[in-house]
Amino acid sequence: MTHLHQLATPACIIDVDKFKRNCQRMRTVANAENISLRPHVKTLKSLQAAHYYAPSPMPVTVSTLAEARYFASAGYTDILYAVGIAPNKLSQLDAILKVAEDFTVIADNISAVQALVDYAPQFSQPLAVMLEVDVDDHRAGLLPESDELVACAKAIQNTPALRFRGVMTHAGGSYDCRNTEERQAIAHQECQRISFAAEQLKQHGISCDVISAGSTPTALAGVSHNGINELRAGVYATFDCVMAGLGVCEVTDIAMSVLTCIIGHQHNKNWVIVDAGWMALSRDQGTADLSQDCGYGLVCDINGELLDGWYVKATNQEHGIICHRDNITPPETLFSYGQILRILPIHACATSAQFTQYHVVNKSLEVSQVWSRINGW
Amino acid sequence: MTHLHQLATPACIIDVDKFKRNCQRMRTVANAENISLRPHVKTLKSLQAAHYYAPSPMPVTVSTLAEARYFASAGYTDILYAVGIAPNKLSQLDAILKVAEDFTVIADNISAVQALVDYAPQFSQPLAVMLEVDVDDHRAGLLPESDELVACAKAIQNTPALRFRGVMTHAGGSYDCRNTEERQAIAHQECQRISFAAEQLKQHGISCDVISAGSTPTALAGVSHNGINELRAGVYATFDCVMAGLGVCEVTDIAMSVLTCIIGHQHNKNWVIVDAGWMALSRDQGTADLSQDCGYGLVCDINGELLDGWYVKATNQEHGIICHRDNITPPETLFSYGQILRILPIHACATSAQFTQYHVVNKSLEVSQVWSRINGW
Repeated sequence: MTHLHQLATPACIIDVDKFKRNCQRMRTVANAENISLRPHVKTLKSLQAAHYYAPSPMPVTVSTLAEARYFASAGYTDILYAVGIAPNKLSQLDAILKVAEDFTVIADNISAVQALVDYAPQFSQPLAVMLEVDVDDHRAGLLPESDELVACAKAIQNTPALRFRGVMTHAGGSYDCRNTEERQAIAHQECQRISFAAEQLKQHGISCDVISAGSTPTALAGVSHNGINELRAGVYATFDCVMAGLGVCEVTDIAMSVLTCIIGHQHNKNWVIVDAGWMALSRDQGTADLSQDCGYGLVCDINGELLDGWYVKATNQEHGIICHRDNITPPETLFSYGQILRILPIHACATSAQFTQYHVVNKSLEVSQVWSRINGW
Repeated sequence: MTHLHQLATPACIIDVDKFKRNCQRMRTVANAENISLRPHVKTLKSLQAAHYYAPSPMPVTVSTLAEARYFASAGYTDILYAVGIAPNKLSQLDAILKVAEDFTVIADNISAVQALVDYAPQFSQPLAVMLEVDVDDHRAGLLPESDELVACAKAIQNTPALRFRGVMTHAGGSYDCRNTEERQAIAHQECQRISFAAEQLKQHGISCDVISAGSTPTALAGVSHNGINELRAGVYATFDCVMAGLGVCEVTDIAMSVLTCIIGHQHNKNWVIVDAGWMALSRDQGTADLSQDCGYGLVCDINGELLDGWYVKATNQEHGIICHRDNITPPETLFSYGQILRILPIHACATSAQFTQYHVVNKSLEVSQVWSRINGW
């Protein structure tokens, strides 16, 4: 078997023990509440990874039609494409629908619904549609009390080649929460607002089979998710520095890292230069506004042990610059030329997107599996 | 032929007329100064693109060994891998060297040189090595006056299986310049400092065949590049909002854009929501510190005409939020559901890295070519 020392750098590493614990944590929450879990596979976009946290026939959420095709081809039948449908993608849907009968798209405005209604006669079987609801003034979605929500649902329901399936929301506002209380408040709000949307539709005679909400911070906020019957979340499987910074996990829970090699120093500036730049780590600086700015990632030794205070301060395309928060001199024992380090990602979805595969290890640092990943659209 | 209207979004578009003009601009500079041009192919990583600005047998610069293999396999023989060599990559070099005899690696410290010296007997023919010099206190490199520079050069020269080729630098500090005078000063400084390094080596009896420097901002600073015999630059072929913000080009010179589709609105906030998020645009916010923050990109209509004041203010993975600087209401004629827009990238190297191909168009908006791209390491 290949040892981490033998890999060419940079490489994206999954600590399978941590990964499994993270997957179990979310499963436990959903089971305890008896809510269906529909993992978002957009972080890892990998069938082998999904085998652990979303094994078929579990429902999944995807962020691209490429993911939808990839999961459909592997036997997944209940796939929610959770980005408002664009008219130029309509012609791609039927091929997915033919192999995944519960393939579902979303819309959040009457023009998008009308585009679906107009195109619907070309589907070989009814396409499921959910309506996106805005619960926290964060991104897309119809307001729960809007007339347009009802009009959209009616238009879908009145179209034989479409199947109205329910309402969904993403509580992205939870990423702006700075403590547990705020996070719990948003979790309550997302459930309250999405179930209110379902209630509004019910009053117009339209029933929602699925009332779906979630984000990793709200799913793991430690509150009851009353009023929904489906929980969606994605980044929990690996976590990252943003999730740790928001208090959703500990830094030691982060199951993803980028393997990198020290290629030089600037001794007078206490810089260690590594071969993981933004091409490997991504340009995400999502902790910049949190209480601790982790730059482009926190630094661990090859064993995955955090090297306290060391972080990637700056990046170029293929260079990372590691410094200590207190600007101390990098000890030669930890930071000599050729030494291997592991960088914990700021945002796992962005970092993993820079790779086409993951090297899976446990404490022995032997690569037990290589998981593939689907990129693109 | 396919028209831009027919493409699924997001897609990465190259305006071939602007692209050719940009390529010609750099060629004119190098020709006028009679300096060898070694384009950096890391922005587009595409043989079909390189056909225009770095046709074989021109020397090229690459940022990964994957690029080196890709260009070597297409007949390029003079390939500079411009990232300090890591020991775990040594075993990959000989395969490239066998097809690209002037394949060249770099080092900026005696430990890296020693690793090369130790490994050198395993090369089937002498491997060319250049030393990286720090001219602007920006990233990697040896100081021109350092004893270590001389020691490294001697160690390379004394190793039969290595071939000392010269000195190189990247004037990354030019990205911090805020006006033409500063940029010209850095351009002078980079030439002065790298030629001083070559001079130092000469005094120790070591000659540099190649004295290489460059960055797009310094190459196009409008100064004579005295003391160097090779100019390197990359992003000039497409330019981007950072380059426009630095005054190196006009916004209308930017030859790359991301095709995207409007999927919704938040009317009360004057938001237009499109299907290009950070997965397509990248997380790069390189204009945040410039006089005009372009967010995640400037917005054009499908023809590539800039829609003044409109920019991508925020992104999620597959969502972009377009606003106007003055928070005006998006006119329905420009921003209705389903309409196609083009986003000018903040940083072309980062945006293009999110794609595996480019759709090449001219003013007619017909896709005349599809160029492929090599990602990974």
